[in-house]
Amino acid sequence: MSVLDRLASSIQPVDPAVARAAREHQDRLTKPRGSLGQLEDVSVRLAALAGRVPAPVPASPAVAVFVGDHGVHAQGVSPWPREVTGQMVANFLAGGAVVNALARQAGAVVAVVDVGMSIEASAVIGAMPGLDRRRVRAGTGDITVEAAMTRDEALAAVAAGAAVADGLLRDGHDLLVTGDMGIANTTPSAALIATLLGADPAVVTGRGTGVDDATLARKVDVVRRAVARAAGDGVGAGDPLGVLASVGGLEHAATVGFVLAAAAARVPVLLDGVIACSSALVAAALVPDARAAMFAGHRSVEPGASAALAALGLVPLLDLGMRLGEGSGGVLAVGVLQAAARVLAEVATFDSAGVTDKNAADGLGAGDA
Amino acid sequence: MSVLDRLASSIQPVDPAVARAAREHQDRLTKPRGSLGQLEDVSVRLAALAGRVPAPVPASPAVAVFVGDHGVHAQGVSPWPREVTGQMVANFLAGGAVVNALARQAGAVVAVVDVGMSIEASAVIGAMPGLDRRRVRAGTGDITVEAAMTRDEALAAVAAGAAVADGLLRDGHDLLVTGDMGIANTTPSAALIATLLGADPAVVTGRGTGVDDATLARKVDVVRRAVARAAGDGVGAGDPLGVLASVGGLEHAATVGFVLAAAAARVPVLLDGVIACSSALVAAALVPDARAAMFAGHRSVEPGASAALAALGLVPLLDLGMRLGEGSGGVLAVGVLQAAARVLAEVATFDSAGVTDKNAADGLGAGDA
Repeated sequence: MSVLDRLASSIQPVDPAVARAAREHQDRLTKPRGSLGQLEDVSVRLAALAGRVPAPVPASPAVAVFVGDHGVHAQGVSPWPREVTGQMVANFLAGGAVVNALARQAGAVVAVVDVGMSIEASAVIGAMPGLDRRRVRAGTGDITVEAAMTRDEALAAVAAGAAVADGLLRDGHDLLVTGDMGIANTTPSAALIATLLGADPAVVTGRGTGVDDATLARKVDVVRRAVARAAGDGVGAGDPLGVLASVGGLEHAATVGFVLAAAAARVPVLLDGVIACSSALVAAALVPDARAAMFAGHRSVEPGASAALAALGLVPLLDLGMRLGEGSGGVLAVGVLQAAARVLAEVATFDSAGVTDKNAADGLGAGDA
Repeated sequence: MSVLDRLASSIQPVDPAVARAAREHQDRLTKPRGSLGQLEDVSVRLAALAGRVPAPVPASPAVAVFVGDHGVHAQGVSPWPREVTGQMVANFLAGGAVVNALARQAGAVVAVVDVGMSIEASAVIGAMPGLDRRRVRAGTGDITVEAAMTRDEALAAVAAGAAVADGLLRDGHDLLVTGDMGIANTTPSAALIATLLGADPAVVTGRGTGVDDATLARKVDVVRRAVARAAGDGVGAGDPLGVLASVGGLEHAATVGFVLAAAAARVPVLLDGVIACSSALVAAALVPDARAAMFAGHRSVEPGASAALAALGLVPLLDLGMRLGEGSGGVLAVGVLQAAARVLAEVATFDSAGVTDKNAADGLGAGDA
């Protein structure tokens, strides 16, 4: 039984009756109905995922930063040299990166996982402790001319991501956050989104962490060539694993496994930016019911992220113009997700608090404070 | 010396050199420049306010919920009965309201302050402990026919709000959050915004926590009449204290003092929704330099809140479709503001972490991950 079959068979649809019960409880809380906006929807989804009302308030978040390198870097899609992947991993391990600072703020553990660093990048790390070494291969192929990886390699990276999630869950973490590091990895993300959604590469390819106009034009062309090459190889949206192997990345594949394992365990998983969103598209194409576990941490400025979120039916919790990756936008949203759960779990009802409920009196949906 | 003179004289402009130094430090952190979007701007503003780079990371937030009632309730602008103000105060004191749950999430203290409850509302509370009793008068006048309060009463409520802030600061709190409770209080908020910005009441009056179309139309008419009545009394935007007394509320006046005291102490103050935003407009009109201390917690769905934020030049941290008040949207944003400060304080620089800075190499503003 492949890792995908195992994950797919353990992901069950949520019970709509639990969602309804959560909405009814939310509507009895001492506040005008609907007045917490999106927070109310999140609280209902968390209860449906947990299968009980209220859902437990997540107390122990963990972010996994999956690291990979990309053969397509040779096409000049990023101004950053490849060794920066390794330098940033060293920074994560030393606790000096943005994701570390935001994780301290959120009380989250950071797991750094090599699933596909290049030889150059890993030379920077050497034997540095703290890295979870699960490398499937040393960087992907250049997706403009060849598949990123074989199907078996994609499955191995999916299994690695799922194993990381399972380990974090065994350690008692009850809220997972996706993270990534890999110079050039917004390019395969755009290729995944373009292929899976049938979208024009010009529409879903962005500036990543900030390329200039000339580089953006080259990047769009690179994504177009990668998508055409994959199509020429007979890979299409109906075969999400094939798409992942053909135009994705090793950190994308690991994220797919991480998200699916969270869904199998009925634990919420906060998605970071475009790498996470493109991976989540793959995960949802493989196992549609996995969407119930997905929560969008933030709206990355990458246009592909918004396209993927719309296709997934997810509304992001934050929209701060961020485009860093690492899991930064996901981990920043931890407190908002916990707050949503806490409202449903802790706020008094009109009955229990002895507050007059004008909703009950006139049947309207809300009031004016 | 009036409380306003004292506050105004202790609020000094921030030093633009500190803001520049903060921006330069932000640009040396190990991430592409600009990749944290709004979080970077917040970190720079916090440093400028504190007068040092980095600013200390706020560790002890406190939200003050100022409570008042409104004579204009008699005009049918809210479907909720007046006693709900008192019932909700009892709920706050018992820890059962949304602001309590969100404050526990944020590690914030909740101070509940009566500056203007009506007799009916305060009868609900009785001698219940925990309420900070600083009532200036029992509810405002009906602003369609008379001033909400006298100038002296407005000043007394400003002083009460400033005293609450000073007390919280003395207790070691280093991040203040505004909150409010008062059935019908979005109506005086709209009247304040319409008068101070010269805006059409139809544009800045909203559904509060959710009135129907007929009530909204009546509410717009009520705001229009209040604004016209104040103008007839000779009160205009050039006299912000007069406007506050004429069409505001006691919780608005207290919030003005609270915000100004935070600015005087150079401590950040997170604004909640439309009540806070209308009060912040008054505070900024009285002491323009006070704006440096203001941070917008969220974008309330009330149209007046967005108009006020635009006039104040503030971009909200959250946009979740909330319209509850109580300080809920302000306290929910605490973690995001702390995260912004933490990034500037804790993230390694390119030099210290040994990460290749492509910005330094090519002079561009950002890179691509």
